[in-house]
Amino acid sequence: MGDHVNRAYRLRRRPEGTLADGDLELVEEEVPELGEGQALVRTKLLSLDPTNRIWMSDIRGYMPPVPLDAVMRGLGVGEVIESKRDDMPVGATVSGFTGWQELVLADDSQLEAPLTVLPDPLPAPLPAFLGALGHTGVTAYIGIDLAELKQGETVVISAACGAVGSIAGQIAKQKGAGRVVGIAGGPVKCAHAVEVLGYDACVDHRADDWREQLDAATPAGIDVDFENVGGPIMDHILMRLNIGARVSLCGMIAEYNTYNEGGEHQGGLTNIGQLIMQRATIKGFLVLDWGHRFEEAIGYLAGLLGEGKLHYDETIVDGGIEAAPGALAQLFSGQNMGKLLVQVAD
Amino acid sequence: MGDHVNRAYRLRRRPEGTLADGDLELVEEEVPELGEGQALVRTKLLSLDPTNRIWMSDIRGYMPPVPLDAVMRGLGVGEVIESKRDDMPVGATVSGFTGWQELVLADDSQLEAPLTVLPDPLPAPLPAFLGALGHTGVTAYIGIDLAELKQGETVVISAACGAVGSIAGQIAKQKGAGRVVGIAGGPVKCAHAVEVLGYDACVDHRADDWREQLDAATPAGIDVDFENVGGPIMDHILMRLNIGARVSLCGMIAEYNTYNEGGEHQGGLTNIGQLIMQRATIKGFLVLDWGHRFEEAIGYLAGLLGEGKLHYDETIVDGGIEAAPGALAQLFSGQNMGKLLVQVAD
Repeated sequence: MGDHVNRAYRLRRRPEGTLADGDLELVEEEVPELGEGQALVRTKLLSLDPTNRIWMSDIRGYMPPVPLDAVMRGLGVGEVIESKRDDMPVGATVSGFTGWQELVLADDSQLEAPLTVLPDPLPAPLPAFLGALGHTGVTAYIGIDLAELKQGETVVISAACGAVGSIAGQIAKQKGAGRVVGIAGGPVKCAHAVEVLGYDACVDHRADDWREQLDAATPAGIDVDFENVGGPIMDHILMRLNIGARVSLCGMIAEYNTYNEGGEHQGGLTNIGQLIMQRATIKGFLVLDWGHRFEEAIGYLAGLLGEGKLHYDETIVDGGIEAAPGALAQLFSGQNMGKLLVQVAD
Repeated sequence: MGDHVNRAYRLRRRPEGTLADGDLELVEEEVPELGEGQALVRTKLLSLDPTNRIWMSDIRGYMPPVPLDAVMRGLGVGEVIESKRDDMPVGATVSGFTGWQELVLADDSQLEAPLTVLPDPLPAPLPAFLGALGHTGVTAYIGIDLAELKQGETVVISAACGAVGSIAGQIAKQKGAGRVVGIAGGPVKCAHAVEVLGYDACVDHRADDWREQLDAATPAGIDVDFENVGGPIMDHILMRLNIGARVSLCGMIAEYNTYNEGGEHQGGLTNIGQLIMQRATIKGFLVLDWGHRFEEAIGYLAGLLGEGKLHYDETIVDGGIEAAPGALAQLFSGQNMGKLLVQVAD
């Protein structure tokens, strides 16, 4: 055995609704000595994403659910602390599916996907590589691209201050949208959306009159919806689509906690018929299909960042790996501003 | 006043749910003498379409709702019986928005849309011009075209024996679909779908095990859904979409009777999230946007018909204009096979 003890969250039970005590178990496990072609990575930051919750459920997702008793799947960045791999020297910074654990055995034959070595020196602060310059930023870029935005159009972005939405809103504005309207929870986020992120208006979906707010904020209807939430908000947006509108369907976080075994969940969208009336399109997409455009997307985002035209927010939760389950709950209650990360190690 | 008395259905009240007595009133009205630029058309056949029900409701549709007290909107074909128009001689056969009435004053400045003069002699029986060679056939053609069907794919068509579905299924097969699966109500329609219309399989949505039937009929999943129905059937189809699947959203007849004032209705689709998982697209469309392709579409369909490769069915309801409201109910209870028409005059 090696000299290291890993602490990892293993999925013991599939959550019903919100993640509960006992669904995940924090275990301590000795790390075997490294073999040839293996490296050991210390997780520094863990990315919390709505899709984490999807992966816990046995639904028809885009990846197999995390098997029971396996380490919880998650994206992160870390540092190589031991190595028997030429391509991953000690001290290198890596990014990818680290899982919810302190130490990752980087063995390509055992991981779901190989980890990627980040450039040295890093061209931006490390957290950005899980956010604006990582999968989150690329998601925003691709979603706006798929919407085929035309000059002057009205764009609505739900979860407007979230990791993806906050970037998507700024890209839409840069790409010539006439009006970009955010939807966010609470006055603090709404003020931030307008004052810092540059939205033309922001609708507080926690206000009783959010429907009227949304109507007032989109006097010329909605041409593009970058949809992160689903549920009643999306249903109302559907009623305001213009002829030829496009919905980039990125996420439906309002629904993920209602997924149960077998794929049953409550609620439902009642206004899909508006797609006919308005000859509108919904395109579902996943960033994992767009690997061939990561370089283009990150180049674009890094360019904006360099010109001071891209603002990104992070909410970094301290407390080590133990903080991950609680952080996930924050994501669903909307407590985070921008990208939500857990600091697993310094 | 002229020599003619028109009998017309006027919309007196917007239906709540299914069309009820008193929603429409049959009135007798004298027809004024023709002025210059006017012609008088006797309606011969009236087209019954699910969208008739939409037009009765004050929802956000693609055309304004029929105003209260106006003649009910409807497509039909008829014959010019008097004329002071050079382009519309007595004896000419015309097609378009005749309305639910026996006599139409063909005055372009007063009609919602001008009537079109059909070729003389007619290249096919008159009913076909409201069906396979009319807006119905074009709808099927455009919907398959928008789905960007690839060779060998599995296509599912709901309302498989309906006016649009029956044509769409045959086009899909002609265009190289590997497997075309219909969904229809009852064993008679299902047998007809397979034996006459050439579907590879047909699922009876009235059977208790329709979900299992659909799963069994689509062993390789679903690549294209030509959707005419909505509701639980569409929701189940969403769960079987393959990666990159396309839904051509043509109609949602399961929901039209639940539209009430203000656009509220029951139910809802719970599986729209599958569009993300499968990176799938829903495109809503309306045939009225595709006027520039009517010639191409009808040429294609007439070609198939000439080669004996297109079968179309009609259900023609006798009884004159009085039969129209009852015929609409047939459409929603699925009693018709193929195109549903009312014979208003011989």
